[in-house]
Amino acid sequence: MDPLHTDRTFDLKHYLAKNGALVDSYLKEYFSNSGIRPPLLRESMEYSISAGGKRIRPVLALASYEACGGKRPEGILRYACALELIHTYSLIHDDLPAMDDDDLRRGKPTNHKVYGEAMAILAGDGLLTEAFHMLSLPGAEIKMPEGVLLEIIADLAARAGLWGMVAGQAQDILSDSAHDGLSDSAKDGLSGAAPQEAAARMGPVGKSEIEFIHMHKTAQLITASVRMGGMLAGAGPERLQALTGYGQCVGLAFQVADDILDVKGETALMGKTAGSDERKKKLTYPSVLGMEAAEAEARDLVEKAFSSLEGVFGPEAEPLRAIARYIIEREK
Amino acid sequence: MDPLHTDRTFDLKHYLAKNGALVDSYLKEYFSNSGIRPPLLRESMEYSISAGGKRIRPVLALASYEACGGKRPEGILRYACALELIHTYSLIHDDLPAMDDDDLRRGKPTNHKVYGEAMAILAGDGLLTEAFHMLSLPGAEIKMPEGVLLEIIADLAARAGLWGMVAGQAQDILSDSAHDGLSDSAKDGLSGAAPQEAAARMGPVGKSEIEFIHMHKTAQLITASVRMGGMLAGAGPERLQALTGYGQCVGLAFQVADDILDVKGETALMGKTAGSDERKKKLTYPSVLGMEAAEAEARDLVEKAFSSLEGVFGPEAEPLRAIARYIIEREK
Repeated sequence: MDPLHTDRTFDLKHYLAKNGALVDSYLKEYFSNSGIRPPLLRESMEYSISAGGKRIRPVLALASYEACGGKRPEGILRYACALELIHTYSLIHDDLPAMDDDDLRRGKPTNHKVYGEAMAILAGDGLLTEAFHMLSLPGAEIKMPEGVLLEIIADLAARAGLWGMVAGQAQDILSDSAHDGLSDSAKDGLSGAAPQEAAARMGPVGKSEIEFIHMHKTAQLITASVRMGGMLAGAGPERLQALTGYGQCVGLAFQVADDILDVKGETALMGKTAGSDERKKKLTYPSVLGMEAAEAEARDLVEKAFSSLEGVFGPEAEPLRAIARYIIEREK
Repeated sequence: MDPLHTDRTFDLKHYLAKNGALVDSYLKEYFSNSGIRPPLLRESMEYSISAGGKRIRPVLALASYEACGGKRPEGILRYACALELIHTYSLIHDDLPAMDDDDLRRGKPTNHKVYGEAMAILAGDGLLTEAFHMLSLPGAEIKMPEGVLLEIIADLAARAGLWGMVAGQAQDILSDSAHDGLSDSAKDGLSGAAPQEAAARMGPVGKSEIEFIHMHKTAQLITASVRMGGMLAGAGPERLQALTGYGQCVGLAFQVADDILDVKGETALMGKTAGSDERKKKLTYPSVLGMEAAEAEARDLVEKAFSSLEGVFGPEAEPLRAIARYIIEREK
């Protein structure tokens, strides 16, 4: 079965617009009524939160919640929106001069270009911390069992942190340094170490390196998103395992597609400068595998995501399948 | 009653050494067995975690746990240590060039001086995220009711984040800018705003400013620490309220004492450069109130901390009282 040729009667455009709007309005209301001081801190967070992202992570949580039989997805918006806070914090910190040093994000100046580096660091710290506040606060629209919320927090903290996103970004930074010769930063950290020891401390190298980076940096938070939806709907182990496989494949495919778009895309469509990965000598799927193999890899990952759902989910998972297709067909 | 002259038979030195050692060894074991990759990320976190802090926050959590009747404090170490992860992340980020730009912390080069800015930002992000992982993971030595753990996570996330530490640090950065003329960072964020509007967006000014900064930046995490201990021991509202009052007063006193030490202390004892606040034109209690009034304020806050415990706690809270005294009598 080629997933790219399955039923397309499901109206993904409408689905993304409807659920994206739910997420947008929840986040807007949440911050504008928050009373966070100083106001400039709130503004800097709102600036990045409202910068027009696709809300893929919360929408995936809503989609897997419904796929697992959850009713009234608008009642779990606070939990789903915590994912967007974590995603947004990661973008703000990744864009910092000491990290990827990007001036443009989604077609707008990056957070630190507008609010300064100090406020950007704090906006990121605040968004990350507030995500866990949103997940643990009482008084959500749909009351969830406390044990389920704790499981979700543990899963998300692992996949957003040291067993996921933060580890992936750290490896990415170290790999950049390795390809460019060591950066001053890495040199500082490795001063006094013998070359072999220094290499070992920098983690995996070669073929496994890019897989490690993208699995951790991108795929784990996507996986946490679909698992959150499943857990909130009370899904059992079989469904959670299917969602985990789906999340990891879709997450990786998302990153492969991003790498491909960076080479092929148009600057105006992408909202960031096309070809910037190559100029920064970033390790990407096209640079490691070649463009043709990278495109085959993206399609292959989406097929694997479909297989992971097969036999466990029926038509109720059509939004998840459509999102997987969309990820490698989008133009930005 | 002058709290500075109450019973001193309690051996605080021994108490701090014993409980500090429990915290040290728990943290050492936790990270060395963690398998975190890349190894350099783990190293950078361990570097700051093991840099010889006083472990005041976890020790306060253990002390309030016992004061509320909790048995076997070594069984709640994982929860208490989450506080040290959050404290350590905040030091790493505060020391960054874009923030306070410090080269020395506890007598050692700051994290970014050793591992570079990118790894320091990620080490901080990783520690913050891992704190919430530690609080939500199953399999702690003493099993706690899930509802209590959720309450603790919500309380800590609020006080470490947008209703506490992050807000305080943001105000501190903005206040520095105001005293120095606006920094480039703040200017970026305020460009195009009328001066009055710009001032309003920067938050409280004048007398209330330093109280806001220190209550949020320092006192809220200390308050979360003693509340955590109480909640883990199943304390009711009266005891939690007493602990909250104690935490806020002790937390403020801690910061006033720090400001005083920065003026009076010796560089060698403090492990950072004495007088650095003044050189950075930081807003401090001595600079706002004068030295004599600042010292009186510190003593007054410790008395208020004692009063908050009075009638609710008996001798079982002696460690909390001794820690309050210690905070304004220490020399570093």
